[in-house]
Amino acid sequence: MSVVVRNIRRVDAELVEKYAGIGVATVHEAQGRKGLLASYMRPIYRPCHIAGPAVTCEMAPGDNWMLHVAIEQCRQGDILVASPTSPCEDGYFGELIATQLKTRGVAGLILEAGCRDVAEITKMNFPVWSRAIFSQGTVKETLGDVNLPLVCAGQLINPGDLIVADDDGVVVVRRKQAEDVLNASREREDKEAKNRIRYARGELSLDVNNMRGKLLERGLKYVDTPPEE
Amino acid sequence: MSVVVRNIRRVDAELVEKYAGIGVATVHEAQGRKGLLASYMRPIYRPCHIAGPAVTCEMAPGDNWMLHVAIEQCRQGDILVASPTSPCEDGYFGELIATQLKTRGVAGLILEAGCRDVAEITKMNFPVWSRAIFSQGTVKETLGDVNLPLVCAGQLINPGDLIVADDDGVVVVRRKQAEDVLNASREREDKEAKNRIRYARGELSLDVNNMRGKLLERGLKYVDTPPEE
Amino acid sequence: MSVVVRNIRRVDAELVEKYAGIGVATVHEAQGRKGLLASYMRPIYRPCHIAGPAVTCEMAPGDNWMLHVAIEQCRQGDILVASPTSPCEDGYFGELIATQLKTRGVAGLILEAGCRDVAEITKMNFPVWSRAIFSQGTVKETLGDVNLPLVCAGQLINPGDLIVADDDGVVVVRRKQAEDVLNASREREDKEAKNRIRYARGELSLDVNNMRGKLLERGLKYVDTPPEE
Amino acid sequence: MSVVVRNIRRVDAELVEKYAGIGVATVHEAQGRKGLLASYMRPIYRPCHIAGPAVTCEMAPGDNWMLHVAIEQCRQGDILVASPTSPCEDGYFGELIATQLKTRGVAGLILEAGCRDVAEITKMNFPVWSRAIFSQGTVKETLGDVNLPLVCAGQLINPGDLIVADDDGVVVVRRKQAEDVLNASREREDKEAKNRIRYARGELSLDVNNMRGKLLERGLKYVDTPPEE
Amino acid sequence: MSVVVRNIRRVDAELVEKYAGIGVATVHEAQGRKGLLASYMRPIYRPCHIAGPAVTCEMAPGDNWMLHVAIEQCRQGDILVASPTSPCEDGYFGELIATQLKTRGVAGLILEAGCRDVAEITKMNFPVWSRAIFSQGTVKETLGDVNLPLVCAGQLINPGDLIVADDDGVVVVRRKQAEDVLNASREREDKEAKNRIRYARGELSLDVNNMRGKLLERGLKYVDTPPEE
Amino acid sequence: MSVVVRNIRRVDAELVEKYAGIGVATVHEAQGRKGLLASYMRPIYRPCHIAGPAVTCEMAPGDNWMLHVAIEQCRQGDILVASPTSPCEDGYFGELIATQLKTRGVAGLILEAGCRDVAEITKMNFPVWSRAIFSQGTVKETLGDVNLPLVCAGQLINPGDLIVADDDGVVVVRRKQAEDVLNASREREDKEAKNRIRYARGELSLDVNNMRGKLLERGLKYVDTPPEE
Repeated sequence: MSVVVRNIRRVDAELVEKYAGIGVATVHEAQGRKGLLASYMRPIYRPCHIAGPAVTCEMAPGDNWMLHVAIEQCRQGDILVASPTSPCEDGYFGELIATQLKTRGVAGLILEAGCRDVAEITKMNFPVWSRAIFSQGTVKETLGDVNLPLVCAGQLINPGDLIVADDDGVVVVRRKQAEDVLNASREREDKEAKNRIRYARGELSLDVNNMRGKLLERGLKYVDTPPEE
Repeated sequence: MSVVVRNIRRVDAELVEKYAGIGVATVHEAQGRKGLLASYMRPIYRPCHIAGPAVTCEMAPGDNWMLHVAIEQCRQGDILVASPTSPCEDGYFGELIATQLKTRGVAGLILEAGCRDVAEITKMNFPVWSRAIFSQGTVKETLGDVNLPLVCAGQLINPGDLIVADDDGVVVVRRKQAEDVLNASREREDKEAKNRIRYARGELSLDVNNMRGKLLERGLKYVDTPPEE
Repeated sequence: MSVVVRNIRRVDAELVEKYAGIGVATVHEAQGRKGLLASYMRPIYRPCHIAGPAVTCEMAPGDNWMLHVAIEQCRQGDILVASPTSPCEDGYFGELIATQLKTRGVAGLILEAGCRDVAEITKMNFPVWSRAIFSQGTVKETLGDVNLPLVCAGQLINPGDLIVADDDGVVVVRRKQAEDVLNASREREDKEAKNRIRYARGELSLDVNNMRGKLLERGLKYVDTPPEE
Repeated sequence: MSVVVRNIRRVDAELVEKYAGIGVATVHEAQGRKGLLASYMRPIYRPCHIAGPAVTCEMAPGDNWMLHVAIEQCRQGDILVASPTSPCEDGYFGELIATQLKTRGVAGLILEAGCRDVAEITKMNFPVWSRAIFSQGTVKETLGDVNLPLVCAGQLINPGDLIVADDDGVVVVRRKQAEDVLNASREREDKEAKNRIRYARGELSLDVNNMRGKLLERGLKYVDTPPEE
Repeated sequence: MSVVVRNIRRVDAELVEKYAGIGVATVHEAQGRKGLLASYMRPIYRPCHIAGPAVTCEMAPGDNWMLHVAIEQCRQGDILVASPTSPCEDGYFGELIATQLKTRGVAGLILEAGCRDVAEITKMNFPVWSRAIFSQGTVKETLGDVNLPLVCAGQLINPGDLIVADDDGVVVVRRKQAEDVLNASREREDKEAKNRIRYARGELSLDVNNMRGKLLERGLKYVDTPPEE
Repeated sequence: MSVVVRNIRRVDAELVEKYAGIGVATVHEAQGRKGLLASYMRPIYRPCHIAGPAVTCEMAPGDNWMLHVAIEQCRQGDILVASPTSPCEDGYFGELIATQLKTRGVAGLILEAGCRDVAEITKMNFPVWSRAIFSQGTVKETLGDVNLPLVCAGQLINPGDLIVADDDGVVVVRRKQAEDVLNASREREDKEAKNRIRYARGELSLDVNNMRGKLLERGLKYVDTPPEE
């Protein structure tokens, strides 16, 4: 019943390149506040930013066997997304697997488990987002699946979906929506760039976004502090 | 029922300046081990140190509307303290609000929720203490209050109270006690400076603080390891 | 009933020196995946690496009195391991105790509680692994024990056992096993060095470790993505 | 600096009686969604319901000395509210203190720490809300305060404030607002009783509360499931 | 962009009936150890057991508006599955919504948030699995979706999928697999019934499942305790 | 390297019988506030009380194979204590193993992992303390140890040590100290019985335990509430 799906359809590589420098918060907002992985998924070093198609890997708790199987399915620019079938902080991932992924040109790893050898992995500049830093060894006894849809940190990830990850966390974009979300992200960035200039000059979002009227309508009252008793 | 209190009474600015370089642990001890916010309030970058009067902002869960309202009430040197009315990790705060606060000369933000755009906010050198780094978007639908007393991370904060925050966390000092606590902090620092020199020379706190007698009186026994079996 | 055991038998100093540069993950694997402290024990700064014999200190919750007693039992190269008798995040440890330990040549501290003054301790380059950064003050009222076996972060630690700690966390090695574990660690490092070279050339752990046969035997299937509907 | 305040002003006893049978959720809503203690405060047995004026007790971590001091300040119908100055799960409270409180006619205990002897306390029908069930013993070494305002489970509690607690948790009502909140609670209960009848007949809150128009206005779309592919 | 999907395809009602008395652990095993919701989803009272098709409801944090919309889409025997878009413990659900669901014959609620009025809901015998019991009020301001696929407590739930929930937790079965899983569950139950009789007679699973050989093969050693020193 | 130790030395059976009705809190206090397992170890039903010698079982994460091995080492009156080598909530234990243990007369199970089939196990009246209720299935692939010392929920447990568990949690008593702790427990119970009578008559622990003098000496002040402003 364990399956490795080969030759998945990936989000278009040219599209992916255009996500360079677009942050997780922007993408998340641009696609309608969806797709954000849980806040416990943290990068092992900062700053960091990657974007690329997901190769998915579901593993047994305390067993990293399938991670080895998944490496072979990863290509240049991919992001490996790996989750255990039940919550586990064990150290599924270390320097030796990092070396293999780095050599293949893999962009990074999203791991809903523990990462170890973080000093070495930081030195080799391979970005990892994980729920823990923990050395606990794993076994290689039980099969899982590669490139089936899985839930990672509260979000459904399909193989080939676009993953964007940075200092703020990780977001998933459906493969077929990557172009629309890119456009919406750029639009948002343009708008934010304009507003940033206004805010840097001292204008307030209360005015820039015309909030004052709605606030009063809802019943907001301004009062002054009474003189000291 | 939602209120913005203007022109709050702030802890005296000259006093605040004198808190430069005085750490959270010192202030907390100097005022009788009170006022420390919960340990989950962590700075988004280190090192960091700020002191200033609190502007308080209570918000609905998942709704950062009042943060926009609160900006306008902040002045040069203030510290914005913001809490949702029930536990929430959403990303209430990002680069655009940071730009507005920075432009107004606000010293920093204490946020019992999530912060996003941490790479950008780190670059602009605006210090934030938060309970999470999380991009989850918020809405602007529900009112709250600005400059009423609130509980943030387990401590009551009155508008105008002195906030001190550094790598160790965040502490609040009542506005009217800021001078006494400053004096006690300096006294403590002087004493610690003297002790540091003695400790650096090899003296022990057991002797410097005369603990040996009390330890024996309470029944402490010293024994030697028996020879190997 | 409170006891300080003096002159404990420590793991051999020459052995300890040979652990320089050997990481926690390696040691943990080399001794059969045992001895790892819980993942919530994190270093206050990175990178960091220490190895040395444990001096143990069990303390009352919210009471750091015994830490002062323990300092005197620490020698050059020791690692102080301190735990409260019930879970507590209070700030047992700060700059002044750090100064004393540093002066005595102590290699570092493993603290199942809170650490404060982390900016100063980072500056003085004294490594600490703790479960929290928290300034909450402690009292000096209740006795505990120094150099009795204790449980710290889920592991039994005997005084004199070898502690190794780095960016990945903390592991304990029984005193009498330190030599065997050193040898097994080196063997493991040698094997990993060879594999690293092969992986860096593009070989896969699937092949290097002969996993393919066992995977198929267990029933792993490879399938191709069907053409787009 | 440790103080016991005697003869506090309590919320009026006749008012308190009228809170019989009014639940925490109702009170919380009736006073504008304020005053709810954190969800980790759970009753040791269910069902349970109490209302009464708060006697407050702030204690050192791992030290229940002040609980003994607070007993004497409790009268018939009071609710003792006790918090440590830093987070602690130790077993501050057991059968012997429960016997004293029960004998004085105290209505129950709100304890931001651990409770022990829960089988015995359940048998004697003395209701306790706590953050943990844990036997860890405490010491009697450090002073605290009785009947000063304190923060318990995220809420400010003033001595004499009204506490209401039931299976859902714990809520605080300011002493001077207890009458208004009672009236608002009753109004809410009356309205809910009417709605309950309508709902039990099959009417929908969508209609009873006229939500349909606003939903459509905001952009809600109804679509049918397409026929099976 | 907010959508309510009507007339979803539900798992067959006759199939659902046959799940009466089949526990969550059995179903989870029978479908290959998949589909289990996170362990923090606990029933508000025990014992309890339900099975039925999922109606899904995704809501904004702190906002239960869509729950009211979802009620209308529920039919006799359905199970409502509701999740916020970011983690939230607020009290989305209470007695009045329970009355509406109960009146429509809904079998129960799976809620990745807080439940309130638990005493009343227990009395009316309406089963709820939730991540918290918490009264915190919610608003009705932001739209969400009804009957789109969602992730609840770490599992993907499609509208119409079969939900089974009992004292052990909650499991989801894909609509089209419900018959196969039923058959596998019954097979498992039959086998377990036979083994239960053997175990009750004193036989061991070591023998009943022929484990001894494989254990020895893997290297298990049996040794006797040496005589007391 | 995996070992099953047979014929362990157990705490004396006659001694164990005398622990009937002596609670965890009493035992913990009587042995000097030691030996308490972490508060997350909770009984699956209440009330409950057991005492007996420990049979220990260390297992791989997500792998309950050794539990089957351990059953055979359990005798009438034993308590099985089982821990994974790294944190894991999986459902290691269910009805079928419970049947085997019950049939052998085993008194109960202490499990630092998940328990499933809790409805059935409750019905068969077999007490279990666990860190979670969770059905997640486990595999049978990796060896562990039976009857070696292990750390469970923060405490060292030696095989043959006395375990006492009740509604309050779990405590371990060293085998050779079981008689002394029994005597101290009875002494404590006698003293508490006398005090309970005094407290039930209205006396206060302040007086019964002569605390007033020490409180004043430490600086406790009694003040009266000033008249209402």
